Amino acid sequence: MFVPRKILEEKLIKLLAEDIGQGDVTSSAVVPTECTAEAEVIAKANGTVAGIEETAVLAEVLGLEVDAEVDDGDDIKKGQVLLKVYGDAATILSVERTLLNLMSRMSGIATATKNLTKKTKKAKLKTRIAATRKSAPGLLYFDKKAVIVGGGDAHRLHLDDMVLIKDNHLVLAGSLEEALKRAKQNASFSKKIEVEVTNAGDAVKAAELGADIVMLDNFSSPQIKEAVELFKKAGFFGKVLLEASGGISSENVLEYAEAGVDLISLGELTHSVKALDISLEIVQAA
Amino acid sequence: MFVPRKILEEKLIKLLAEDIGQGDVTSSAVVPTECTAEAEVIAKANGTVAGIEETAVLAEVLGLEVDAEVDDGDDIKKGQVLLKVYGDAATILSVERTLLNLMSRMSGIATATKNLTKKTKKAKLKTRIAATRKSAPGLLYFDKKAVIVGGGDAHRLHLDDMVLIKDNHLVLAGSLEEALKRAKQNASFSKKIEVEVTNAGDAVKAAELGADIVMLDNFSSPQIKEAVELFKKAGFFGKVLLEASGGISSENVLEYAEAGVDLISLGELTHSVKALDISLEIVQAA
Amino acid sequence: MFVPRKILEEKLIKLLAEDIGQGDVTSSAVVPTECTAEAEVIAKANGTVAGIEETAVLAEVLGLEVDAEVDDGDDIKKGQVLLKVYGDAATILSVERTLLNLMSRMSGIATATKNLTKKTKKAKLKTRIAATRKSAPGLLYFDKKAVIVGGGDAHRLHLDDMVLIKDNHLVLAGSLEEALKRAKQNASFSKKIEVEVTNAGDAVKAAELGADIVMLDNFSSPQIKEAVELFKKAGFFGKVLLEASGGISSENVLEYAEAGVDLISLGELTHSVKALDISLEIVQAA
Amino acid sequence: MFVPRKILEEKLIKLLAEDIGQGDVTSSAVVPTECTAEAEVIAKANGTVAGIEETAVLAEVLGLEVDAEVDDGDDIKKGQVLLKVYGDAATILSVERTLLNLMSRMSGIATATKNLTKKTKKAKLKTRIAATRKSAPGLLYFDKKAVIVGGGDAHRLHLDDMVLIKDNHLVLAGSLEEALKRAKQNASFSKKIEVEVTNAGDAVKAAELGADIVMLDNFSSPQIKEAVELFKKAGFFGKVLLEASGGISSENVLEYAEAGVDLISLGELTHSVKALDISLEIVQAA
Amino acid sequence: MFVPRKILEEKLIKLLAEDIGQGDVTSSAVVPTECTAEAEVIAKANGTVAGIEETAVLAEVLGLEVDAEVDDGDDIKKGQVLLKVYGDAATILSVERTLLNLMSRMSGIATATKNLTKKTKKAKLKTRIAATRKSAPGLLYFDKKAVIVGGGDAHRLHLDDMVLIKDNHLVLAGSLEEALKRAKQNASFSKKIEVEVTNAGDAVKAAELGADIVMLDNFSSPQIKEAVELFKKAGFFGKVLLEASGGISSENVLEYAEAGVDLISLGELTHSVKALDISLEIVQAA
Amino acid sequence: MFVPRKILEEKLIKLLAEDIGQGDVTSSAVVPTECTAEAEVIAKANGTVAGIEETAVLAEVLGLEVDAEVDDGDDIKKGQVLLKVYGDAATILSVERTLLNLMSRMSGIATATKNLTKKTKKAKLKTRIAATRKSAPGLLYFDKKAVIVGGGDAHRLHLDDMVLIKDNHLVLAGSLEEALKRAKQNASFSKKIEVEVTNAGDAVKAAELGADIVMLDNFSSPQIKEAVELFKKAGFFGKVLLEASGGISSENVLEYAEAGVDLISLGELTHSVKALDISLEIVQAA
Repeated sequence: MFVPRKILEEKLIKLLAEDIGQGDVTSSAVVPTECTAEAEVIAKANGTVAGIEETAVLAEVLGLEVDAEVDDGDDIKKGQVLLKVYGDAATILSVERTLLNLMSRMSGIATATKNLTKKTKKAKLKTRIAATRKSAPGLLYFDKKAVIVGGGDAHRLHLDDMVLIKDNHLVLAGSLEEALKRAKQNASFSKKIEVEVTNAGDAVKAAELGADIVMLDNFSSPQIKEAVELFKKAGFFGKVLLEASGGISSENVLEYAEAGVDLISLGELTHSVKALDISLEIVQAA
Repeated sequence: MFVPRKILEEKLIKLLAEDIGQGDVTSSAVVPTECTAEAEVIAKANGTVAGIEETAVLAEVLGLEVDAEVDDGDDIKKGQVLLKVYGDAATILSVERTLLNLMSRMSGIATATKNLTKKTKKAKLKTRIAATRKSAPGLLYFDKKAVIVGGGDAHRLHLDDMVLIKDNHLVLAGSLEEALKRAKQNASFSKKIEVEVTNAGDAVKAAELGADIVMLDNFSSPQIKEAVELFKKAGFFGKVLLEASGGISSENVLEYAEAGVDLISLGELTHSVKALDISLEIVQAA
Repeated sequence: MFVPRKILEEKLIKLLAEDIGQGDVTSSAVVPTECTAEAEVIAKANGTVAGIEETAVLAEVLGLEVDAEVDDGDDIKKGQVLLKVYGDAATILSVERTLLNLMSRMSGIATATKNLTKKTKKAKLKTRIAATRKSAPGLLYFDKKAVIVGGGDAHRLHLDDMVLIKDNHLVLAGSLEEALKRAKQNASFSKKIEVEVTNAGDAVKAAELGADIVMLDNFSSPQIKEAVELFKKAGFFGKVLLEASGGISSENVLEYAEAGVDLISLGELTHSVKALDISLEIVQAA
Repeated sequence: MFVPRKILEEKLIKLLAEDIGQGDVTSSAVVPTECTAEAEVIAKANGTVAGIEETAVLAEVLGLEVDAEVDDGDDIKKGQVLLKVYGDAATILSVERTLLNLMSRMSGIATATKNLTKKTKKAKLKTRIAATRKSAPGLLYFDKKAVIVGGGDAHRLHLDDMVLIKDNHLVLAGSLEEALKRAKQNASFSKKIEVEVTNAGDAVKAAELGADIVMLDNFSSPQIKEAVELFKKAGFFGKVLLEASGGISSENVLEYAEAGVDLISLGELTHSVKALDISLEIVQAA
Repeated sequence: MFVPRKILEEKLIKLLAEDIGQGDVTSSAVVPTECTAEAEVIAKANGTVAGIEETAVLAEVLGLEVDAEVDDGDDIKKGQVLLKVYGDAATILSVERTLLNLMSRMSGIATATKNLTKKTKKAKLKTRIAATRKSAPGLLYFDKKAVIVGGGDAHRLHLDDMVLIKDNHLVLAGSLEEALKRAKQNASFSKKIEVEVTNAGDAVKAAELGADIVMLDNFSSPQIKEAVELFKKAGFFGKVLLEASGGISSENVLEYAEAGVDLISLGELTHSVKALDISLEIVQAA
Repeated sequence: MFVPRKILEEKLIKLLAEDIGQGDVTSSAVVPTECTAEAEVIAKANGTVAGIEETAVLAEVLGLEVDAEVDDGDDIKKGQVLLKVYGDAATILSVERTLLNLMSRMSGIATATKNLTKKTKKAKLKTRIAATRKSAPGLLYFDKKAVIVGGGDAHRLHLDDMVLIKDNHLVLAGSLEEALKRAKQNASFSKKIEVEVTNAGDAVKAAELGADIVMLDNFSSPQIKEAVELFKKAGFFGKVLLEASGGISSENVLEYAEAGVDLISLGELTHSVKALDISLEIVQAA
């Protein structure tokens, strides 16, 4: 996901503005005027870092200088200095919390994602680990970016970039057949069409009806295997993608991957983030 | 925290707009035109619900009717219907994810907060459980609201509503004395002044210098007890509030509360939220 | 393309606000206070109407009542009443120009699109007529919606919903192979991948490299036929879509369609719109 | 029309943001990281260029360097390089379409306007060619600017800068007399007052009632002559401006100009723009 | 000045949002839940009321019911009830200050304006009392509206609606002649042209050069008379408007009006507003 | 009050944008292209200057250079040059009015505030002079900043930063006891609690009930003395702050201060501002 820097700046300034309110009364009262400082952003735990680009852009748009010591996606150790920031001391302290909140969240997401992608890589599997749209509201861009930094697949960025027919759509359309018929007819050629199914038979039927991707919803790993077998027999394997979703965690992710799906998506990557502990310390002031 | 409904509507519509993008291509392709539906929002896990007000406002501003079956703060059971929503089917499906993302996050926060406040209440302690500013970026309002729903204290809403002198401010001001002197002199009378200290002696010194609240940062529970004792001797106990912060979890929260602090604040309430599982099901369509 | 009504309202109000400026000084000076009126929106030329939904939403959000006499996509005749609007007279006149500008532009786009889709339908061809991103800046949503109303395909809604590798991307990637390799590796599974080629051989190569869609850029219709033949021989026809783009107009569109491509896209549908003449007349006032 | 650059930047970034959506997935997937490029913006047709200032400002606010080879209003030839742009390759490709859409539209408007202004100049007539408010919705600023670049008159910029009493206002006010009486009484002295009439007699009456400008709506050129004669007799010619509007095209514009009106306004200058073909080519990458 | 209600709503909600911040912590803590109330907005001083429309729209968009007892422009007495407001008590108290701030300021402006317009009316003079652009920043719309309510002329609404050549423009253009030549040539026919002069001779010269309005800047009333005489002799009186500006107050306004100018403008009407004292009282609660 | 510069820039650009509208038609018509100028911002009256920081930031974000000759809070004399501004001439003239409107208002507020704070300082009293929320709507930030520059206390920045229980809240809560009980229970520990009382007895009662600050509303200075005496007797003096509000002006402010309150707040500081006369003169052009 690439956005021109100016557009990223505006996203970040909006996040900051919420926290500033009418002004930072502490910096204003306590920090000496015209005081400049050097600060270090330091990891307080091991993990995979994300948000380096965002932090640098946010700090720079506020007139601070930034030296990034690591790159997005790097594995970092507790105690490691991630970035150095120089400039107006009150500005640094005013942005500290917004900057850390963003970086901790993004790094938490990247860390969780990379834990999974490392497992599949180690097992020499090509299964992609994907996010869902279950992000924190308003943070789709940053949550998806963090998943990508962690080696995952962003999946849909929002509601306009793929047709994904879920259980509720099926209820409204009346049947799998009708839903896929409508989708093929009404959706733009530029969109892939994915459909959620609840059994292996429907997976094959969906492929026959022209789905590009079939989501196996809440399948156990043996059920996944069965679906993969049926898909192979029907000649769809490798042509129509299979996505497993629901009930998957870091404990059983390899079972699912080994069962042969192309994709595994997990809502918890973005809806239940464990923030990576990161702090900012003023190391020098003048 | 009370905001006029119209202002809440605008906050919510901005969150929705991000997810909609240029439009919901799935609803548009698959859902029959002029189709109305009834949907149920259902708990998939036990917990404390939050976001009922927000969900109702968001659904209603989109022209949907809402029947809330529970109130914010209620304890809910897996399988329980929380809200019923009626109206245009495509509208329901377009807002489903934003609505659930918000309610799941807020309920996750409320659930975690209430787990702690229940413990202190059961132990007949008056210790308040408080949030910090470690929210998801951009979601301060909703994260704080959820903490309140869970029986917690919102703490600062943003940077403008209390002076909170932390380690970095102390570095820049040069000393505890200087920092508090500046704060007393420069801050508005309308703001409380809190200061972070790292030992019991400084806690007393901060109180002597006029702090309204003293934050005991990363104290063990025995260290807390020591500080409380010193505070009692110095006559500040009950007059200047004591807040414990750092290293506190649901395991040891009672130890801290029993040690005698007025407040316990936990960043994890908002930075590492475990979303409460909630889903939306179409139960009828016409 | 479906957006919840409230979000459409906000898009429309922004367009109106630009035209209002600090206020409508003519209505304010000339229209009697508390005057209500009935107005008719009337076609001044034959064509295909679009913007009925948008007009109705805009008028209603301003407190006016609307009776639509036609539906989006209907063929309309010069002199035909399209909508009736009732309510505060000054409000009607203040919104008149914004409303007509939008409806005239959208109807112009729908008319041009339908002229083409009628030709292919009459010839019993399934070729889709598609827009490009060559819209008026800021009007992607409305321009795309109008293309859909005219029976066309919206193509990409913006830069985030499909990978489309054009000549400039190929220059930067170094080669067709490298570009497609990168796209397959880096893009989300949820995105289709389209690539622009300049000869029939590259079309086949692109399909072999995994493109979902191949854009034949500035091909003559005989060159299109050649590419289609090669595609058939290589077994890609019907599996990998072929899009013709460049140099196509209403005169030669059937030649291109008959040559066998799946899609024909035309920038002029949205970059060189001939507005359909539509006016608003006050027919009664009280 | 002069706006401070920062305000123009914000207008342009809003247009770009719509096209970017959540990010440019193609540049992100295909363009090598840290790749810089040089691009040329090239005319693919003869015409009059506009949007040079806007393009330069948009590119520069994104961190790109720009060398403009031509000025707004210059006549350009097919194949001519208009601008060179240097900088981050992904940024160039992300902004390419927005930049070209704006420049092509503005240049199309300038070209059409200049075709008309050249005719009147060649005939040594002082008749001004003017736009109307029939722009693309949301693009009043850019459409008007392009008309000015083409040598035309912007006419009203929006609803607040002149009183223009049209047919519908006359219906509501009851009569020409009443409408003008109200306008003279209620409108600020700072506003000119224009009124639309449908016959020569009313033109004179409007002048007598104090109109600053009289719009001759849908007059044939002989009818225009008649009105001009009456105006001369009544002593208003040269004091009260005459504007011809409706049914005028590049074919008959000289007839209207020669008939003696001060102004000729054409909605099609902005509502039915033929975009000037302009493209962007990467010419070097590193 | 007429704006569609929806656009006024958005202006008002932005003003309210600033005051609300993250929420009204007092209403939230103190006002009983689900409490409705009736409030009266009461004049605490005599004056001319403005802001009734704005208050009603703001209250109604928040879901409150409003009964206006007076109309904008009415003379009001200390103790008089201006509006009654019913509805959610917390909402009433949350909007109280924003509503009163707006109404007090607008009424202060209207009162000051009407004091002047009454004087000229009483003296049977047609001199218009006008505002300038010296409003509170961001409040041009409301300040101008209040001047109109007080019987004054809004003058320019912002920088785009008339050419007003002031001293600094003259310095840059080099001379009165050059400035007016440029203005006549470059400005749209739709704009009036006003120029500021510092002596009677220049006033006549400006009229000869085609100015529509001449501003006599910082003239004493005898100097005004001299300028009027010269204008009469030169035949411009009544054709080219004369505006007096600078050094005029309620004490000497009649002298200036009697000296014969068409317009008198005063910056203090909007830059030095004495707010009219208005308060809101809860009269009943349930 | 400290806000990061970028956030201040955005506040200022919004204020400017309102005045620019579609563009500055005067500068555009009259100012020669590519003309640069030097301008001086000059005091036309004695007073205390504020808005220097805001003016500098606004001018610089527009690409102008600024030399400030004075600092915010300095006492200035009529004729004194406050700032020099260099750069594009049209930009300077386009921003002139917004810049002066802001600086004149803020300096007017600072001047009035300093007049009061000087009096208390001269009398060696520590009484703080405070603002209220009676600002111009939308200008809370700038009005409060100006009060601080004048040596005053900003009081509440908006509704979220202190609990202030006023007469209407007391009506709704039923009693002083109930209101304070609710506030102590429901408000965050981070908020001070202030309550308005109408007699000395209630002042003491409020202190007993835990108020942090008691507002003596519309007390005469003898009544203030009585309340102070009671407070001293009850042992609250110096512990619970006393604020006098209502009926206080520069004439009687010392009486109130000498009566012993900690704070005196005046709505007129921000609701009835007398702008300080400041102008901008072009002194050189090239």
